[in-house]
Amino acid sequence: MPTNRLWKLAARPVGAFKPTDFTWAEEPLPPLADNQVRVRQIYLSLDPTNRGWAGPTATYLPPVPLGGVMRGLGLGIVEESRLPGFREGQLVQGLLGWQSYYQGDGQGLTAFDRMPGVPLDAYPAVFGHIGATAYFGLLEIGQPKAGETLVVSAAAGAVGSLVGQIGKIHGCHVVGIAGSDEKCTWLTRDLGFDRAVNYKTGNLRAQLAEHCPRGIDVYFENVGGEILDTVLSLINLRARIVLCGLIAQYNESIPPPGPRWFGNLLVRRARVEGFIILDYAKRFPEAFAALGQWLVEGKLKYRVDLVDGLEHAPVAINRLFEGGNTGKLLVKVSGE
Amino acid sequence: MPTNRLWKLAARPVGAFKPTDFTWAEEPLPPLADNQVRVRQIYLSLDPTNRGWAGPTATYLPPVPLGGVMRGLGLGIVEESRLPGFREGQLVQGLLGWQSYYQGDGQGLTAFDRMPGVPLDAYPAVFGHIGATAYFGLLEIGQPKAGETLVVSAAAGAVGSLVGQIGKIHGCHVVGIAGSDEKCTWLTRDLGFDRAVNYKTGNLRAQLAEHCPRGIDVYFENVGGEILDTVLSLINLRARIVLCGLIAQYNESIPPPGPRWFGNLLVRRARVEGFIILDYAKRFPEAFAALGQWLVEGKLKYRVDLVDGLEHAPVAINRLFEGGNTGKLLVKVSGE
Repeated sequence: MPTNRLWKLAARPVGAFKPTDFTWAEEPLPPLADNQVRVRQIYLSLDPTNRGWAGPTATYLPPVPLGGVMRGLGLGIVEESRLPGFREGQLVQGLLGWQSYYQGDGQGLTAFDRMPGVPLDAYPAVFGHIGATAYFGLLEIGQPKAGETLVVSAAAGAVGSLVGQIGKIHGCHVVGIAGSDEKCTWLTRDLGFDRAVNYKTGNLRAQLAEHCPRGIDVYFENVGGEILDTVLSLINLRARIVLCGLIAQYNESIPPPGPRWFGNLLVRRARVEGFIILDYAKRFPEAFAALGQWLVEGKLKYRVDLVDGLEHAPVAINRLFEGGNTGKLLVKVSGE
Repeated sequence: MPTNRLWKLAARPVGAFKPTDFTWAEEPLPPLADNQVRVRQIYLSLDPTNRGWAGPTATYLPPVPLGGVMRGLGLGIVEESRLPGFREGQLVQGLLGWQSYYQGDGQGLTAFDRMPGVPLDAYPAVFGHIGATAYFGLLEIGQPKAGETLVVSAAAGAVGSLVGQIGKIHGCHVVGIAGSDEKCTWLTRDLGFDRAVNYKTGNLRAQLAEHCPRGIDVYFENVGGEILDTVLSLINLRARIVLCGLIAQYNESIPPPGPRWFGNLLVRRARVEGFIILDYAKRFPEAFAALGQWLVEGKLKYRVDLVDGLEHAPVAINRLFEGGNTGKLLVKVSGE
């Protein structure tokens, strides 16, 4: 039997994740029982929401128990199955955890056959929770119309970079907010965003006002804090704010004050709506069909920021909160 | 010709309205020109939104110009008309201003025949912007379902008291938040609210949690500030927050920080939506038909807080911000 290598959550993080919040373990796997499947993980996805899962209070999922395997989404391959619906050689996505092998009853996992010609990293970067989040969040909650102005924060991140491209496909004027000139150049030159604003240089409000001459109709929010506040000051009548993430506050023990421009929602008759992609799980195939088509047509691009080796996960995850990644942050856990 | 008595806006208020923000004037009215109507005002409505109109920046309407008649909604009667659509003896509602006579082109006014048996104060209290706000705000934006829990802030105010009763008519568990024990007693004993919480005594969150044992599904917001924040901490999945008013911050020059619990919108997949009743003007008859029916059936009650004499308007309006009124605050400008 193979040996499982894993990260257990050892302590509730205070502020950013520290290596001492985790304990490394190597444990031989027991033989597979009836109604169990063993999945070898290939790519572990590092996502901002992981920080919430590690905290002391329930978010939309219960907290990871101390001493338990750290919760994480990933892509793997079925090595052995005694579980109906899972076949050796199939790919698997879902809550594989921060470990090299998942072995269990398959709860929270989906098995599927590899699509010919699709690189494996496209699953966690596009054909998984990331792509579905961008697709349903923008189209269902944001309801963009051609000619409207769409602003995306964390635009060079995994979700944001897809959202902006989907906005372009739907005829929007798309403005991305990112944290470096390199990211901004990537957005406008490679991904086709109309404009990109580096929030770390210059006056964000003045730059946004300049690049959104007709105001802001849809805002896809991944960040929160001052960026949200600034955008709220520029929204149009009946603007829609898609509340996808608030990464600026995930490392805070006490939630920071909300936006001062909150009252503009009233004056502008605007809407803020939160969403969690798990609610759309049954409709994922609809998103993947559209995303796949756009990928084939060259209308959609993605980038992966790869960390080699599960042992680096506790340090690498902080890149998300420091703006260190461009595109989807993945950990390569094992080879194809 | 009669003499017009009026309040002009003399200064932009800082904080609460002060008497010196207004100038009293008495001016003889010129003869009526073609396409003009003269309306004698009976009831002037004092509303929280008046504070925004007096400020230096546009809200959903441009600021009242300094030196101009203070803007206000009211009920009056046509005394003379050379304007098609306005007949002598008809009632008129709309932007009559803080004056005893409106004379002009009728912009922003609606003329109608008095309904038999309806007391005149029912128009500004129910069959006008107040009733329409309660009706469309709750039913269109809040979308309450039978069995859900509805919380209303400023529940003893003009809009809030109607909202709670409409919620009861639709089968909700209704909890009001108000600022005195007398108001709370009025809500539960006379208006049929299930529960009422005095936010000035005891712990608001603990009281709300006790009175909303199944959480909060719909929140009708008139207040903002800490009350909003506390409610956000108790919302259910897919809660709807109707942003009707934010009276707690209308006297502030700089908007206060938004709610710390803003992030709960994300975790709970909840929605905040602002609305302005002017957007529903064409559908008012629909609201008035329903409200009238409920009034006749005894399912809906209203109360008027009457100030006698236009000269008291600049002082009386601050009652709204101090929680001094119960029900609709009106100024009696002239007799029926």
